[in-house]
Amino acid sequence: MAWMSNARSPEAPYEVIRWQGGQLSVLDQTRLPWTVEHVPIQDVAAACEAIATMRVRGAPAIGITAAYALAIEAQRCAGASAAAARAQVERAAAELGATRPTAVNLRWALERVTLATRDAVDGIAVAAVATTTAERIHAEQLEADRRMAAAGVALLDAVPRGSAGSVITHCNTGPLATGGLGTALGVIIEGYRRGLVGHVLVDETRPRLQGARLTSWELQQHGVPHHVIADGAAPGLIPGRNVRAAFVGADRIAANGDTANKVGTFGLALACQYHGVPFYVVAPRSTVDLATPDGAAIPIETRDEDEVLRTIGAERAALAAPGARALNPAFDITPAELITAIVTESGVVRPPFGPALRAAQETPLG
Amino acid sequence: MAWMSNARSPEAPYEVIRWQGGQLSVLDQTRLPWTVEHVPIQDVAAACEAIATMRVRGAPAIGITAAYALAIEAQRCAGASAAAARAQVERAAAELGATRPTAVNLRWALERVTLATRDAVDGIAVAAVATTTAERIHAEQLEADRRMAAAGVALLDAVPRGSAGSVITHCNTGPLATGGLGTALGVIIEGYRRGLVGHVLVDETRPRLQGARLTSWELQQHGVPHHVIADGAAPGLIPGRNVRAAFVGADRIAANGDTANKVGTFGLALACQYHGVPFYVVAPRSTVDLATPDGAAIPIETRDEDEVLRTIGAERAALAAPGARALNPAFDITPAELITAIVTESGVVRPPFGPALRAAQETPLG
Repeated sequence: MAWMSNARSPEAPYEVIRWQGGQLSVLDQTRLPWTVEHVPIQDVAAACEAIATMRVRGAPAIGITAAYALAIEAQRCAGASAAAARAQVERAAAELGATRPTAVNLRWALERVTLATRDAVDGIAVAAVATTTAERIHAEQLEADRRMAAAGVALLDAVPRGSAGSVITHCNTGPLATGGLGTALGVIIEGYRRGLVGHVLVDETRPRLQGARLTSWELQQHGVPHHVIADGAAPGLIPGRNVRAAFVGADRIAANGDTANKVGTFGLALACQYHGVPFYVVAPRSTVDLATPDGAAIPIETRDEDEVLRTIGAERAALAAPGARALNPAFDITPAELITAIVTESGVVRPPFGPALRAAQETPLG
Repeated sequence: MAWMSNARSPEAPYEVIRWQGGQLSVLDQTRLPWTVEHVPIQDVAAACEAIATMRVRGAPAIGITAAYALAIEAQRCAGASAAAARAQVERAAAELGATRPTAVNLRWALERVTLATRDAVDGIAVAAVATTTAERIHAEQLEADRRMAAAGVALLDAVPRGSAGSVITHCNTGPLATGGLGTALGVIIEGYRRGLVGHVLVDETRPRLQGARLTSWELQQHGVPHHVIADGAAPGLIPGRNVRAAFVGADRIAANGDTANKVGTFGLALACQYHGVPFYVVAPRSTVDLATPDGAAIPIETRDEDEVLRTIGAERAALAAPGARALNPAFDITPAELITAIVTESGVVRPPFGPALRAAQETPLG
């Protein structure tokens, strides 16, 4: 079923997660922007590798890829009994779930697929329902992205064309991050289309440079004017650049609104607070984890020191003194008090986030 | 006169600015930490190139190098009349002063040398006094560094050995930055010797990676435990790592205490304020510019976009999407309200900085 592929959407000129005739492939984000190439994901091991090495990244895109990987595993077990097939799917879900601990969408997507297979009567039915569920997760993401973009642009006041000013973002939250239209970057791209955003300051986002490599590439594809900046340059540049708002994504939003996102987000939020610039988090409801009370309860993934100490790419050239050690937390927690509003497909929620997030999770989508 | 070379000091195991028999060379900081090699500076053009490309960097080290370059120029003109030699020295000073606009030590050192030549009766006297003045500037820096280290470590409360905790720093402010013992990093190294600092978090300091390349290398030379972190990781790491204080240098301190320093310093100050960690600026009095009323009056040098978009080193590998543009301010301004105290060779000054800085500039050194 290719119909929900984002390649079909006029809003996204490239395909991020390709699912066609039961075959999965993902645009390899470790090789972007220099090589635009899909890698096939033929089994759960390949999916784990692709997620752990960040060939596919972005909390929603990870969830969708993992769901498709379960569908592939279920199809492999279609000849087995329902119990045997389900057991295999659950083993695969545990393996996939261990790849990245911070994002909650991954866990959410895996649970949704495994739960859906509960009443299947045989291996064929397990495979069918796993596949349908994975496809639905992907299709729903595209729809959620459309709703987030609409709700997010409504946060930007109308301005005369040509005076739209800048917004600032961190990491990558475009189609590459969701397999749909993106979250925060989806809002920004839609804002540019409507004349509400004139220019984007893109945090390069060390150490993996998702901003410099991926967000800059995506904004080029969509024709949005932008400049890449060192992450540390944001506090000094915001006041002089007519920055109207910051839009960032999230890997997990706790029940109180504390938000785990790519390392560096917390600092951008502090800079926005200091300068009086609104700081918006844009993420699908699958990112909200009401079972996590606050940021302190979110596990922060620590990644390889070499991501800080060496360049990306095959050459892995040293950036630091030989023998230097690094600390490399992949995420940080932005305290809820620094967040102006959270945008989900249910709309915009404002502080106090606790009750508002709970209500948003239960809002029926029209 | 090699006696003031920091190679002679037991505190510094490597020589940064070498001045011997009228010959100048500097440790090439663009090649560190991979190659430890001095480059000769034979004339003003070579000095300008070395400063602009950051072979020599750090506000005090730039000032010292420029002063020696004037001495070399004056020696070249020793056969001319006093007026002709002075005119030539002033032309050279203008050329050197234009290389980097933000640091005030450069301007201060150039003025000090040119003023000193005012009463010289012939070209030989111009050369003699320019040389003596440059050597004095270098010697005084070493002494200022000793005083700053003593004043700075006094800010750290005594703790039982082994529980000294961490401090955090940005960019490079060690011997490499002053040709002496360093400013902020001099305090940190002295704090480690005295058991008041157990570990250092080193901001890698994009885009030029002075933290990863230079500070990490210097801390290794002095045996100080440390980890390099992405600049954006500081706000999330500070609370969990028992960070007792931040120490940073400065390129110019305005009369009200607003401080220009390497881009990213402002963000570190915001993180420290949020977490209640003291934020200390350590810089010699030659960095304080009472003629600059506040940060808004400090010119911020914008450097080549490729510093953000490409790796350091000969290969200049692309880090960003092809065609991406960058904004690359070399510095930012930390507002005085975020600074806990400023340490100079006169001691520690606290807010309100205006009168305290003015008094510190006039304090006789014992």
